[in-house]
Amino acid sequence: MQSPTQRGGTSGATNCTLSAFSIIDEELAQVRTLIEQELSDCSEPVRGLVGHIRVGKGKMIRPGLALLSGLSCGGITKKHIRAAAIVEMIHEATLLHDDVVDEGESRRGLPTLNSLRGNESAVLLGDFLLSRVFRLCRGLDGHSAEMIASAVVQTCEGELRQIAQRGNWELSESEYIGIIAEKTAALFSAACAVGAILAGADEKQVKMLADYGHNTGIAFQITDDLLDLVGDKKKTGKTVGSDLDKDKLTLPVIHLLSTAGRKMGKSLFGKPGDEPINRHRRADLLARLRNNGCLAYAQKRAEEFAQRAIAAIEGLRRSEGRTTLIETARFAARRTV
Amino acid sequence: MQSPTQRGGTSGATNCTLSAFSIIDEELAQVRTLIEQELSDCSEPVRGLVGHIRVGKGKMIRPGLALLSGLSCGGITKKHIRAAAIVEMIHEATLLHDDVVDEGESRRGLPTLNSLRGNESAVLLGDFLLSRVFRLCRGLDGHSAEMIASAVVQTCEGELRQIAQRGNWELSESEYIGIIAEKTAALFSAACAVGAILAGADEKQVKMLADYGHNTGIAFQITDDLLDLVGDKKKTGKTVGSDLDKDKLTLPVIHLLSTAGRKMGKSLFGKPGDEPINRHRRADLLARLRNNGCLAYAQKRAEEFAQRAIAAIEGLRRSEGRTTLIETARFAARRTV
Repeated sequence: MQSPTQRGGTSGATNCTLSAFSIIDEELAQVRTLIEQELSDCSEPVRGLVGHIRVGKGKMIRPGLALLSGLSCGGITKKHIRAAAIVEMIHEATLLHDDVVDEGESRRGLPTLNSLRGNESAVLLGDFLLSRVFRLCRGLDGHSAEMIASAVVQTCEGELRQIAQRGNWELSESEYIGIIAEKTAALFSAACAVGAILAGADEKQVKMLADYGHNTGIAFQITDDLLDLVGDKKKTGKTVGSDLDKDKLTLPVIHLLSTAGRKMGKSLFGKPGDEPINRHRRADLLARLRNNGCLAYAQKRAEEFAQRAIAAIEGLRRSEGRTTLIETARFAARRTV
Repeated sequence: MQSPTQRGGTSGATNCTLSAFSIIDEELAQVRTLIEQELSDCSEPVRGLVGHIRVGKGKMIRPGLALLSGLSCGGITKKHIRAAAIVEMIHEATLLHDDVVDEGESRRGLPTLNSLRGNESAVLLGDFLLSRVFRLCRGLDGHSAEMIASAVVQTCEGELRQIAQRGNWELSESEYIGIIAEKTAALFSAACAVGAILAGADEKQVKMLADYGHNTGIAFQITDDLLDLVGDKKKTGKTVGSDLDKDKLTLPVIHLLSTAGRKMGKSLFGKPGDEPINRHRRADLLARLRNNGCLAYAQKRAEEFAQRAIAAIEGLRRSEGRTTLIETARFAARRTV
């Protein structure tokens, strides 16, 4: 492992879309190698499926955060590589299961596994990933493993809460934030906290990084939901509008309903169980969201959470690691991919 | 906790269908309480779903094996209660995910969660259970947790292998046994081995109980597959014939094809992807399985594995625990529920 002062920003190619991650290029490559090793160590039919999921080929933001948190608290160790692989594998497992949940048809520009091989393979492959994670956690200390396990519990609870709230036009912004704090930010926060713990950080630093991760995660998810409405399918590689199809309320729509009146919900969306919102109505809705400043509002809220994330790590000593965490928080709120 | 000599067989009611388990009545009640505690400690929408799954209300064979293995190796401790809750929760998570996989409509006489609330809730609730298991494992020693994690990995691999083999009329008996050894017997074996470890058993005893669990698990699954063909829906509480509907080959059919010739597969089942086998063809198939001794053959094989299980623990000192393990292996092969 290198110390922060030995780092260069140019080595090797990366699949990561966040250029600031170039300072952890080598470590991210090690994370990918570890994930590949973990996933190739299985019987033939499973290996065939693993080829479809392209784990470790996305933005790698969660493993990146675990590594950068380590870097900003003293340095990256072998255990950081393991923890980073763990959080990426958890993320991939939730994507697989989300695709079943959301009936998504494409992810990262490729057909989802469930649309190719059916729900059953997607569910079981997600379980396979989770069970490998479970085993990999044995190599971490008790505190880190506990944090990761709790983050997985929260992720599931958040997803289930979100399903329970579908089509609820009364959902408030704070309830929405509470849901995404669980379903997304819990894993971001755990990745950062564990990165700090494994670098020998003190309790205060661990708390700073947990807060940083929590706020970055919220910014990231608000933006994710915004991209579901207005993103470029070619760039995001995801099915656009899937939240609307599932009556899943996200921040721009919540803001519209809270400003323009809740009654609009019914007229715009119909009752839960009605036909999914059609193209015509969707275009109408998008125009209203834009004209009422709801897209801009969500963007502003994402940036506020990114600012909170940055403020949370003000107390850390200046380092390349901290600087990159700051850039990552900004990316979380401003990304277009 | 009681020592084996203090035990009586009459205390309290049990939901368990295996009467021999009455000697661990109290501990099974503690396992149920722990599971209930674990599952009630969650937010509201999740709690609502948990009510549907009736975890801890089935045969409780896996937790029973963990407890009895402890009992036969020195005694049941608090950690046994935890380990027993863990294996039951894993089992329940796989049932939830299996129901998605198999499109099952009833389980234990009740509608499955997925048929009530959609695949999404079933998937996420299974994940929620697995993530709670993950956290509960923190309270066990490293060796036990490692064994449990490996069993979950194997369970997933076995399920995926089984899917990959669907409609393969060439599947041999030994391949089938290999699949069920992973998908079912791995967790049985881990439950027994962990029960022994937590009672302070030596390596030889742990090995004996792992072997016992492996063979009991295979006997149990052969019988489960047999009940899928000829079971009484009122007794088993499951959708009968779901394996055939999914082109899933189980032992009686494999035996029929190996004795009556592989060509029959095509004429009986059609090509993979054809319409599921209809009632008329199913009645015909069942008659052939019966007339060709294939049901009896599967029954005999299950009993042979039960005998191997019993032989595996011959070296353990005689105790009420060992006696009940012997009865449990017989039950695994002869049960009608």
